[in-house]
Amino acid sequence: MPTNRQILLKSRPPGLPSAANFELVERPAPEPGDGQFVVRNRFMSLDPYMRGRMSDARSYAKPVEIGEVMTAGTVGEVTASRHKDFAVGDTVNLQGGWQEFSLSSGAGARKIDPKLAPIQTALGILGMPGMTAWCGLLEIGRPRTGETVAVSAASGAVGSVVGQIAKIKGARAVGIAGGPAKCRFVKEELGFDDCLDHRAPDLAAQLERACPNGIDVYFENVGGAVQEAVWPLLNDFARVPLCGLIAQYNDSAPRPGPNFFSILRKRINVRGFIVSDFLEKWPEARRDIAQWIGEGQMKYREDVVEGLERAPEAFIGLLQGKNFGKMLVKLV
Amino acid sequence: MPTNRQILLKSRPPGLPSAANFELVERPAPEPGDGQFVVRNRFMSLDPYMRGRMSDARSYAKPVEIGEVMTAGTVGEVTASRHKDFAVGDTVNLQGGWQEFSLSSGAGARKIDPKLAPIQTALGILGMPGMTAWCGLLEIGRPRTGETVAVSAASGAVGSVVGQIAKIKGARAVGIAGGPAKCRFVKEELGFDDCLDHRAPDLAAQLERACPNGIDVYFENVGGAVQEAVWPLLNDFARVPLCGLIAQYNDSAPRPGPNFFSILRKRINVRGFIVSDFLEKWPEARRDIAQWIGEGQMKYREDVVEGLERAPEAFIGLLQGKNFGKMLVKLV
Repeated sequence: MPTNRQILLKSRPPGLPSAANFELVERPAPEPGDGQFVVRNRFMSLDPYMRGRMSDARSYAKPVEIGEVMTAGTVGEVTASRHKDFAVGDTVNLQGGWQEFSLSSGAGARKIDPKLAPIQTALGILGMPGMTAWCGLLEIGRPRTGETVAVSAASGAVGSVVGQIAKIKGARAVGIAGGPAKCRFVKEELGFDDCLDHRAPDLAAQLERACPNGIDVYFENVGGAVQEAVWPLLNDFARVPLCGLIAQYNDSAPRPGPNFFSILRKRINVRGFIVSDFLEKWPEARRDIAQWIGEGQMKYREDVVEGLERAPEAFIGLLQGKNFGKMLVKLV
Repeated sequence: MPTNRQILLKSRPPGLPSAANFELVERPAPEPGDGQFVVRNRFMSLDPYMRGRMSDARSYAKPVEIGEVMTAGTVGEVTASRHKDFAVGDTVNLQGGWQEFSLSSGAGARKIDPKLAPIQTALGILGMPGMTAWCGLLEIGRPRTGETVAVSAASGAVGSVVGQIAKIKGARAVGIAGGPAKCRFVKEELGFDDCLDHRAPDLAAQLERACPNGIDVYFENVGGAVQEAVWPLLNDFARVPLCGLIAQYNDSAPRPGPNFFSILRKRINVRGFIVSDFLEKWPEARRDIAQWIGEGQMKYREDVVEGLERAPEAFIGLLQGKNFGKMLVKLV
């Protein structure tokens, strides 16, 4: 029986997680019971939302318990099955967790065709981050031709798709990212109109120059200082899809938000969302993005580390913006 | 030629306005030019938004200039006309300003039928405040049967209508108002399910008891401490029509808003609005409210002072919550 390496939540971090919050264990790989199947995970996704699951604060999802396997989306192949819909050899995308083998009843699992696209895109542009970008931008942001869309974490798995969709829809796309290499990539490879380094001391002034007509949609992934620079540039009737606040995830005390007068005076619409709020839109979103990739209108970049044991370090780096593109762990 | 008494903006207040910010002057009443008419104003409306017009901060409306007549909605009778659509004796609702006689070109003026309802309702429940309540609650708040709607400034011109519409739509209505007399009125006369005194030191605990299923719609008129008490009780997918922040209008420094994590985690939708954003809905709103009044489903209360010279004092009291019902100045 093969060994299943797993990473468990060992303790809850007060701020930025450290390696000590995780524990690597070896267990026998699971065997499927009736109506179950086992997946050998090949890729595992690392995403900012996982920081929230490490805390026991009230949230939209229940936290990972101490001693439980950390949560993650994975893709891999079925190696054993007693489930009528999943056969040995099928490629499957599921919430498989930080581990090499996952046992599944099929709930939330989806077969994917490995001939259509590299299988790990099911964790990125054709998966949760791509759906997040499409749903947040088009269902909440609703950019119109000629409007300006600003997006933070613009080289990341979600932000990179947001700006590219904005361009396809005829809007001006301005990204904010960390460092000159990411900014260059966002402008030159992804085709944003501009991209600014959030580390620049004069970010607010740069942003004002890059958005001469103000900002109509701000797709918020980070919060903090970037939000403060964006806020005064928001136009009347601006829409703010609130997707993430990664710059604030490790705050130990809650940080106050923008003064509500600005929201009142400019009639701004701020709306928090998570991608599962728009489940019924996913098929349309996936069709659109697959088509745009096929037409060469949309690009993506992956940042892959190899081996489950490197997941904690890669995840901590992700929270600090050290990744460059969709963060993945290759497991085999 | 009769005398026209007017109140001008004399200086901009740094915080709460005082009598010294206003100046009463006497001028000859205007004569209509071609395409114009003159209205003898009988009632003048006092509303919290006027505090904003006294400042020169960027806003949705241009400020009143120093030396200009303060802005206000009025109703009165046409006393002279060279306008084809308005005849002497017509009752007209217009943005007539803080003065006894107004000259109008007809822009923004509306004839009303004095037999249908007391003419001053055109400044209250059938005017801007009523339209504000209807549009904000039904277009942004969208309460569903069985949901809980909380509204601040619940005995005021807008809040009183918000809670009554919420009840008509099958929701639970919980008001927050200033003092036991207003709370009693809101519960016993207007029929809200509950109404709490914002001056109570245990407001947060009282509110939690009054909203056992949390809050689905918070119609925000005041901000400040009431907002802080409401915020933790908001449910997932709560809607916050942001209509006013009267508790903050006289702040000299901007007050930070709620932490954005709460908006993200609970997928709250906060949307600032002003009533003119929904102009196309006004006829429907006015029909609904007139019908509800006719059926005895909706009540309103007026707080009337007599004489233009009392307007500054009444307005300053309004900003402090001293009025009880729709604040009006009877001019003649």
